[in-house]
Amino acid sequence: MIRIGVIGHGYWGPNVVRNFHTHQDSEVVLVCDKDQNSQARLKKAHPGIPFTTEVMEVVKSPQIDAVAVVTPVWTHFELAKAALENGKHIFIEKPFTSSVAQAEELIELADRKNLRIMVDHTFLFTGAVKKIRQLVDEGALGELFYYDSLRVNLGLFQHDVNVIWDLAPHDLSIMDHVIREKPEALVATGETHLNGVEDIAFITVYFPKRIIAHINVNWLSPVKVRTTLIGGEKKMLVWNDLEADEKIKVYDKGVTMSSNPGSLHRLLVSYRSGDMLAPKLEQIEALNAETAYFLKCIEENKSPFNDGVSGLRVVRLLEAAEKSVRKRGEAVAL
Amino acid sequence: MIRIGVIGHGYWGPNVVRNFHTHQDSEVVLVCDKDQNSQARLKKAHPGIPFTTEVMEVVKSPQIDAVAVVTPVWTHFELAKAALENGKHIFIEKPFTSSVAQAEELIELADRKNLRIMVDHTFLFTGAVKKIRQLVDEGALGELFYYDSLRVNLGLFQHDVNVIWDLAPHDLSIMDHVIREKPEALVATGETHLNGVEDIAFITVYFPKRIIAHINVNWLSPVKVRTTLIGGEKKMLVWNDLEADEKIKVYDKGVTMSSNPGSLHRLLVSYRSGDMLAPKLEQIEALNAETAYFLKCIEENKSPFNDGVSGLRVVRLLEAAEKSVRKRGEAVAL
Amino acid sequence: MIRIGVIGHGYWGPNVVRNFHTHQDSEVVLVCDKDQNSQARLKKAHPGIPFTTEVMEVVKSPQIDAVAVVTPVWTHFELAKAALENGKHIFIEKPFTSSVAQAEELIELADRKNLRIMVDHTFLFTGAVKKIRQLVDEGALGELFYYDSLRVNLGLFQHDVNVIWDLAPHDLSIMDHVIREKPEALVATGETHLNGVEDIAFITVYFPKRIIAHINVNWLSPVKVRTTLIGGEKKMLVWNDLEADEKIKVYDKGVTMSSNPGSLHRLLVSYRSGDMLAPKLEQIEALNAETAYFLKCIEENKSPFNDGVSGLRVVRLLEAAEKSVRKRGEAVAL
Amino acid sequence: MIRIGVIGHGYWGPNVVRNFHTHQDSEVVLVCDKDQNSQARLKKAHPGIPFTTEVMEVVKSPQIDAVAVVTPVWTHFELAKAALENGKHIFIEKPFTSSVAQAEELIELADRKNLRIMVDHTFLFTGAVKKIRQLVDEGALGELFYYDSLRVNLGLFQHDVNVIWDLAPHDLSIMDHVIREKPEALVATGETHLNGVEDIAFITVYFPKRIIAHINVNWLSPVKVRTTLIGGEKKMLVWNDLEADEKIKVYDKGVTMSSNPGSLHRLLVSYRSGDMLAPKLEQIEALNAETAYFLKCIEENKSPFNDGVSGLRVVRLLEAAEKSVRKRGEAVAL
Repeated sequence: MIRIGVIGHGYWGPNVVRNFHTHQDSEVVLVCDKDQNSQARLKKAHPGIPFTTEVMEVVKSPQIDAVAVVTPVWTHFELAKAALENGKHIFIEKPFTSSVAQAEELIELADRKNLRIMVDHTFLFTGAVKKIRQLVDEGALGELFYYDSLRVNLGLFQHDVNVIWDLAPHDLSIMDHVIREKPEALVATGETHLNGVEDIAFITVYFPKRIIAHINVNWLSPVKVRTTLIGGEKKMLVWNDLEADEKIKVYDKGVTMSSNPGSLHRLLVSYRSGDMLAPKLEQIEALNAETAYFLKCIEENKSPFNDGVSGLRVVRLLEAAEKSVRKRGEAVAL
Repeated sequence: MIRIGVIGHGYWGPNVVRNFHTHQDSEVVLVCDKDQNSQARLKKAHPGIPFTTEVMEVVKSPQIDAVAVVTPVWTHFELAKAALENGKHIFIEKPFTSSVAQAEELIELADRKNLRIMVDHTFLFTGAVKKIRQLVDEGALGELFYYDSLRVNLGLFQHDVNVIWDLAPHDLSIMDHVIREKPEALVATGETHLNGVEDIAFITVYFPKRIIAHINVNWLSPVKVRTTLIGGEKKMLVWNDLEADEKIKVYDKGVTMSSNPGSLHRLLVSYRSGDMLAPKLEQIEALNAETAYFLKCIEENKSPFNDGVSGLRVVRLLEAAEKSVRKRGEAVAL
Repeated sequence: MIRIGVIGHGYWGPNVVRNFHTHQDSEVVLVCDKDQNSQARLKKAHPGIPFTTEVMEVVKSPQIDAVAVVTPVWTHFELAKAALENGKHIFIEKPFTSSVAQAEELIELADRKNLRIMVDHTFLFTGAVKKIRQLVDEGALGELFYYDSLRVNLGLFQHDVNVIWDLAPHDLSIMDHVIREKPEALVATGETHLNGVEDIAFITVYFPKRIIAHINVNWLSPVKVRTTLIGGEKKMLVWNDLEADEKIKVYDKGVTMSSNPGSLHRLLVSYRSGDMLAPKLEQIEALNAETAYFLKCIEENKSPFNDGVSGLRVVRLLEAAEKSVRKRGEAVAL
Repeated sequence: MIRIGVIGHGYWGPNVVRNFHTHQDSEVVLVCDKDQNSQARLKKAHPGIPFTTEVMEVVKSPQIDAVAVVTPVWTHFELAKAALENGKHIFIEKPFTSSVAQAEELIELADRKNLRIMVDHTFLFTGAVKKIRQLVDEGALGELFYYDSLRVNLGLFQHDVNVIWDLAPHDLSIMDHVIREKPEALVATGETHLNGVEDIAFITVYFPKRIIAHINVNWLSPVKVRTTLIGGEKKMLVWNDLEADEKIKVYDKGVTMSSNPGSLHRLLVSYRSGDMLAPKLEQIEALNAETAYFLKCIEENKSPFNDGVSGLRVVRLLEAAEKSVRKRGEAVAL
């Protein structure tokens, strides 16, 4: 039985509590939030779990094996560091940290103490992303050409971070999970309109083998869109996360170039258009699968694929994007 | 009666011929195409219009008042220059020219000879774009925040131009028509995959007053999308050009910031969400309205709003985008 | 403080419990379900509410003012009758009863004892239905022509009732609420395929003034559809309940007939097509508004609009539909 | 070379002329329309084809092998009869005739003279309907459960026929083509609102083996819908003819009943939900394939599948629907 302490019981925290508490191999033994009001909500859902407003009670408790950090990103480093120093494994919200330097320090600390870090990129555990990864791994799409994601809606404005740090971690972590190449450079553009932080941004990431990724995030869209296009040599897919069913459509479409024997200068272009398949997706609660995997990694003393290093890759991209957007698209080598 | 010669009778040329020929104030007196095969098509549609394969017959004919240049962009400069030198007004396909220098030379030449240039940015004459322009002009959207356009589909690969020169002229001309500010800088990213020219590109244009525009063009998408989001302070709209009806949806949605009396550091954010209106759009053939307007400008000796200067603004952006994309997003001042 | 007893704690019951329990003017004092297992769920959500498996404990309790009957329809009559005889107001799931005779008996009994009956046609309290009713009442649609509803999905097969008794109560109650004319006749067709009860059915209801209603219900559809078209003389609307936003679209479209002065036999038909408006809808939990209204009706000793008589009108239509469908569409006068 | 005379050059006639004229095995030698104005249109498209306003010139011409009757339905019988009597094969618009008696007389006459009749149910030659028929024939859907079609839009009101005769021939012919059972009975309901003919109607057709079909046609809908659901034991499909791509979606979904060993009275219901496939459809002009097939049937002296007998089946259903709708859904045995 792995004993979990949870720090942060706001929007997402209750889901983390519920999943760890209902899993047969773990129990939540203490929940902490600075806001005393969140105690009532905990009481109602889980009357037996103690509550505190003092983070140090969680971090230092000898009854606790692992700490879930479900707080704003600017608090991550201090909390995670304290937990690791006290010998706790950590399960931490995305983005991992506010800077590359912080992420590197936490990774080094966890390594030294042989503790696990899991960064909660929940999307990686959804049926949709698992299917996309599978299709890419099987070679069903062929060589990848591009990854193009649109994630826009009205609000919710964050006070402390811009739209890049708020929305892009989803896309960057999925992109990283699917493309599996080391990015070469990043260019980001964007603008601030209302409260001095960027509310719209466009990020391009260059990869080896001419793979290009593009992410469009916007807090000022009248409609909510969650659509990703992935183009490959053999097939292409559209992932619309707002569809109730048929979230992923795989198109047997493509373009082939061949040299034109009658001309030195022209290529013959041919288009292929076949069936479209919307594969059945696994119906799971992603966070449930992820928390179970966290417990398994602790028990088996192995590093999760969404570990600190993986979280660092995303933070490195976020840091680069923020740097680039502030300089109107100046490319940042990665 | 204005007498028109048409050079280029491929995909779009027949529409230009039909519109000028059926207008009561003009007639097409000669059509030219290098491909003899296109004669049959002309014969069938308009048995009475003579055909030639020699462009000089059109350019030099004393029977012709205006020349429509409906050929690939790399031929525009020579053809238009010859026509202007021979005292013909010109109606010319978009993009206007292959370079800023060419466009400037043609504008100067037309000015000197008091001839009209109209660049065929047909979209500006559609009911949808006219409605968007009207909404912006009336102030219905309030101060503009952003213009974000997605124009993707499978093919058609062009041999001589990349996806920027092929698809972005539509978006750039509409953006220019709607925003009506002088752009400050441009950043473009993209990649080539198949035939050595860019098949996917992302263009950001910075305007004064924090207005930002973004254009996503892609020849390798399995689905066809033609969607533009325009966000303003008061309202926001979505233009989906593939909808049969309700192409434009205007959302009475917005975000308001106010200072929080209880805190020095925080802004209060409030969201507004009201009705959505899909206004009835004018049902017209855009090219018909445009050709009629060309005739009117000649008759009244006045410059059209889509004149050479307007066409030049688009070419300047295209040239900048190509320069930027080749340098992985290096910003180009405009 | 109105004291509520709830009978039935399966799929819908917990929502009824939650709403009555959190309302400031009521409290749930006893919950009953034959299935002992449902006690655990109650305990978790509301540790303080007692649970019983004996319905008579609820029905006879002197601590209870009103009973919510949230059980299968075939149990409604006995439970409601016992509750009314013991002086309790009742809040009862739709459809009200299994037969017209039962409904009439309950209405008479409640009248005699001056007790309230509310039939839980929750949809009538949604923002969408309230807006439709308002548009009709204001005359925005003009004279009504038709009401046409499609409610199809895969399953859930019921063992004890057919698709008419399962799905059509929604449509029939909304139709009754919106049209507000006394129906004249009903024709129903349908078929059984799997378990001996109708899994697909089509119901036509004739009203005065040439208003016609049609309801298509189907348990064997691969896709879920919840769409209603309402056509009027002045405007027409489409209600798509599966849209996240813009559930209701009002079209300024219509047809006008006028006599053709040049012909005795022909009418001139003209079509009108204007804007489309998706009005903002009230964002409420319908059941919350409904339970609050139930409490208010008890306190003010007045009959709700969704009373037993209203529930009876729906049962009368269901009974007629079942009769008609068994005789391959034989019309039933109402 | 089969010589064709075409009677009727209004909305659809020019397509018939074009297809027969461009086919290598046929030529159009005479076109007839009562409206002299339609001559100009013919002249423009096919300057070489003679025109007349006298139908008897077509019907009696010894230069003509087959007559295409592309006129309103109430004229079909007289024109087709005259053509057959003069030894011409006929290609005739749907619906075949205004009554069963007329259809039977024409079939008998053609048989006697060994002439071909083809009724132009163009939809049967589309890629979509061919694919549906193929899926049913292959058994991909398993035993059919139902066929449910929605064909609604605003207008166009016809003066001489109601919405059943105008829109339902499409659905009835496709239903007949796909289901391939002899219908047992029909029930139709509907209403008239504006010009004394039904503008909205709902038709149910009962087939053997519990197959049921339903057709919803409406001239008073603010939105255009062309959607058909077909449910089978193994798979189900949705055909949306307004989709540019993916017109047909085949769902690997179903319901299975099995007896519950623990209960005499209950069936166990299980639902199956797998992939969705949108098969690539043949991209053809349906009328082109159909006219070619007409020529082939004449050459090979064989009866087309869409012959007079097939056309008669549709007319029989239309006649029954009109009879039923006038009697508020009285069932008509077939």
